[in-house]
Amino acid sequence: MSETVDQTAPETEADDEYYELDQRTVAAALYAVEVGDRQRLIDLLEPLHAADIADILEQINPFDRRRLVLLYDREFDGEILSELDESIREEIIAVLKPDVLAEAVREMESDDIVDLVEDLDEPQQEAILDQLEDADRVAVEQALSYPEYSAGRLMQRETVFAPEHWTVGEAIDYLRNADELPEQFYHVILVDPKMRPIGNVTLGKIMSSRRDTALMDITEDMFQVIPVTQPESEVAYAFNQYHLISAPVVDEDDRLVGVITIDDAMIVLDEEHEEDILRLAGVSDDASLSDRIMDTVKGRATWLFVNLLTAILASLVIDLFSETIDQMVALAVLMPIVASMGGNAGTQTMTVAVRALATKDLTAQNAMRVVRREVSVGAINGLLFGFIMALVAGFWFGVPMLAVVIAVAMLLTQVAAALGGIVIPMLLDRAGIDPALASGPFVTTVTDVVGFFAFLGLAASVLL
Amino acid sequence: MSETVDQTAPETEADDEYYELDQRTVAAALYAVEVGDRQRLIDLLEPLHAADIADILEQINPFDRRRLVLLYDREFDGEILSELDESIREEIIAVLKPDVLAEAVREMESDDIVDLVEDLDEPQQEAILDQLEDADRVAVEQALSYPEYSAGRLMQRETVFAPEHWTVGEAIDYLRNADELPEQFYHVILVDPKMRPIGNVTLGKIMSSRRDTALMDITEDMFQVIPVTQPESEVAYAFNQYHLISAPVVDEDDRLVGVITIDDAMIVLDEEHEEDILRLAGVSDDASLSDRIMDTVKGRATWLFVNLLTAILASLVIDLFSETIDQMVALAVLMPIVASMGGNAGTQTMTVAVRALATKDLTAQNAMRVVRREVSVGAINGLLFGFIMALVAGFWFGVPMLAVVIAVAMLLTQVAAALGGIVIPMLLDRAGIDPALASGPFVTTVTDVVGFFAFLGLAASVLL
Repeated sequence: MSETVDQTAPETEADDEYYELDQRTVAAALYAVEVGDRQRLIDLLEPLHAADIADILEQINPFDRRRLVLLYDREFDGEILSELDESIREEIIAVLKPDVLAEAVREMESDDIVDLVEDLDEPQQEAILDQLEDADRVAVEQALSYPEYSAGRLMQRETVFAPEHWTVGEAIDYLRNADELPEQFYHVILVDPKMRPIGNVTLGKIMSSRRDTALMDITEDMFQVIPVTQPESEVAYAFNQYHLISAPVVDEDDRLVGVITIDDAMIVLDEEHEEDILRLAGVSDDASLSDRIMDTVKGRATWLFVNLLTAILASLVIDLFSETIDQMVALAVLMPIVASMGGNAGTQTMTVAVRALATKDLTAQNAMRVVRREVSVGAINGLLFGFIMALVAGFWFGVPMLAVVIAVAMLLTQVAAALGGIVIPMLLDRAGIDPALASGPFVTTVTDVVGFFAFLGLAASVLL
Repeated sequence: MSETVDQTAPETEADDEYYELDQRTVAAALYAVEVGDRQRLIDLLEPLHAADIADILEQINPFDRRRLVLLYDREFDGEILSELDESIREEIIAVLKPDVLAEAVREMESDDIVDLVEDLDEPQQEAILDQLEDADRVAVEQALSYPEYSAGRLMQRETVFAPEHWTVGEAIDYLRNADELPEQFYHVILVDPKMRPIGNVTLGKIMSSRRDTALMDITEDMFQVIPVTQPESEVAYAFNQYHLISAPVVDEDDRLVGVITIDDAMIVLDEEHEEDILRLAGVSDDASLSDRIMDTVKGRATWLFVNLLTAILASLVIDLFSETIDQMVALAVLMPIVASMGGNAGTQTMTVAVRALATKDLTAQNAMRVVRREVSVGAINGLLFGFIMALVAGFWFGVPMLAVVIAVAMLLTQVAAALGGIVIPMLLDRAGIDPALASGPFVTTVTDVVGFFAFLGLAASVLL
């Protein structure tokens, strides 16, 4: 059983359903909306985390969503906006009364506001910026001046730093007397006289060291400085690779301008993965279940259209051999097996290659060895499944030469799939194109064309 | 430019190649191994993070790997073992001299040792446990007594806690006089007299609050208690959903037994994603580029074999209509287009569904609406691509009725793909089977069978 403090933990929850929204709460909230019982709605939602309220809003239909938001009214918290899926977020901002929106946004930290407004249309963005106090507005606008998806957008501007020559005692006195410290911070950043970060000291170390200890003597082993223009995907990589907790962000003169913490990096890592998974499946990466139908159609149709072109290309190959098929219809029955097996093997290799590129495990150093390795795997699987299909085809159609033809075609297609699956992502990556997005159609084209050509071509020259 | 303190940042590094291993360092290390220059190898590797040394070991070939490890000898650090890919890790443990291995392991924290030994074979596990001091050995063995992939395996056993009635001053005095505090900690956990955790206070809040402030008054809003048997995937979900930094772990009596921090959760989240991506592509989830060839063949062949069965099933459908194809070979040319478009649409929907199930965005609450929505999307794409293919087929083969047949078959297949793509993952999930692993073959079978049946069946009844 999991439990959140303040949250009414459903008692009948099954053991394998940790953290699932209690559907009775959702139903009760919808009923409160239906009968317009504002107090009941507030009582139901108040104990929930903003992320869970956002999930409820995403799961109900647009009509109920609108009514719920209007009934909830001034209870609507800025944090709920941060947690919402982009498409739903715009819809809700349009529904919120201007004064409710203003209050919701004013409670938020400046980096959360950046995250909120950066995806909005110009007019909605302006509407929100107008609600901010001058200092916040300047902070948000400065953050927005950094490139999209850069460390500058991701960082908090509030940092806790100390001169490099300070002792533990000086740091403790400073921290205990500071007017305002950030909500969450884990390190004191040591800076040189030019404000360049040179080390991190954890609060735990400061707590447990003698007052006369120099901060420089208790810095963390692992210290990574992030340039403000660094893409956020690289930031997430660094946190994941080096197990960072927080890292100072610097401008082009190496001066401290902000700090990124692991919780921000975790969100980016999650988004990057989501994007990779969806792109590999040919779904536009901002896809979500709550998108409008026509947005979804558009997101899916683009890829399907590319697939249609490669499928037609494959059909043109088949058409070359239509006379052959006319003479032996068994070929038409068997040819999809060769192509399908090639497509699947190609997708397997391609996925492993795309992941290895993303995690920087596939490099110039091991590229040739990996290609040889994948081709060997393809050849072995080609021999294995070629042999199986030779048996199947031989017994099915009773033509020994057909068995030989399909075995050889399988082998060739599996090798081509392995080669295409590894080389195409590598070439795309080198050309600066996201291999997760673009590899699929190329790999499928290779496996389909090679599959049909090898099988039907061999059949035409050997069988007839 | 990125830089790690102590690390020789390559000056010619391109801007889009943050954190990529400098290939000259790798080449220089290999040269040092070649000529047996131990000091040079140490000088080259010493500035690197253990994760980067592990990456180098993964990227070079097994022969060089063995030589490098033997030459590096006692410099080999336990942390490198932690960072290594599982397959390479076993290989290197077998290469390391017993005394080097013993020293490497003795330096490690007990939760890192758990992570290291849990994947090892029994004899290797014993070899490592034998090197540990008694206290460590007991700690590791107790952790191993929790279920695999549970919070108990993930947690650190060292916690920092305080009675619920303490003040900030008492907490500071305790922390400053404590003999030994964990390497990394971010919260002091408040516990009741029965050792049940009831709140988290950040070190930052303790630092900046007055000595007479009650700790209970400055606890974090978000507080989540994790049961020791909770699956690690759910732990990662909770950290990601509720933006946790650390969370206490409790036994069945709700008593504090450990703590999980966000860096551990981030590693799990990363692994879960990796697993999902690879499983969706039909690659066994422990796949890596450094696996032995026969391991890879095995991992890939399982899925290819399942795919072979579904492909043969589809061919049986084609075989039903072999006479029809015999009379009109254009059908053989066009039929792969219908099946391929169905397969792709099915994969798109299935991937979105699998992700939505993983993020708990697809629930009983919105299931029916999502199904209707996906079917609508499928129908619209079916009409769109049916129309396009009708034009293509009409012009290509000059048979108007063929154009009608392919349009209708496209529509039916797209709708079936949408329905299969969403319903199959939902049913598997409800049956307790990982939808990422098992959806693919079922969805492909549906789209292939419906595609061929609709197209050839319609053709048989209308055209001939």
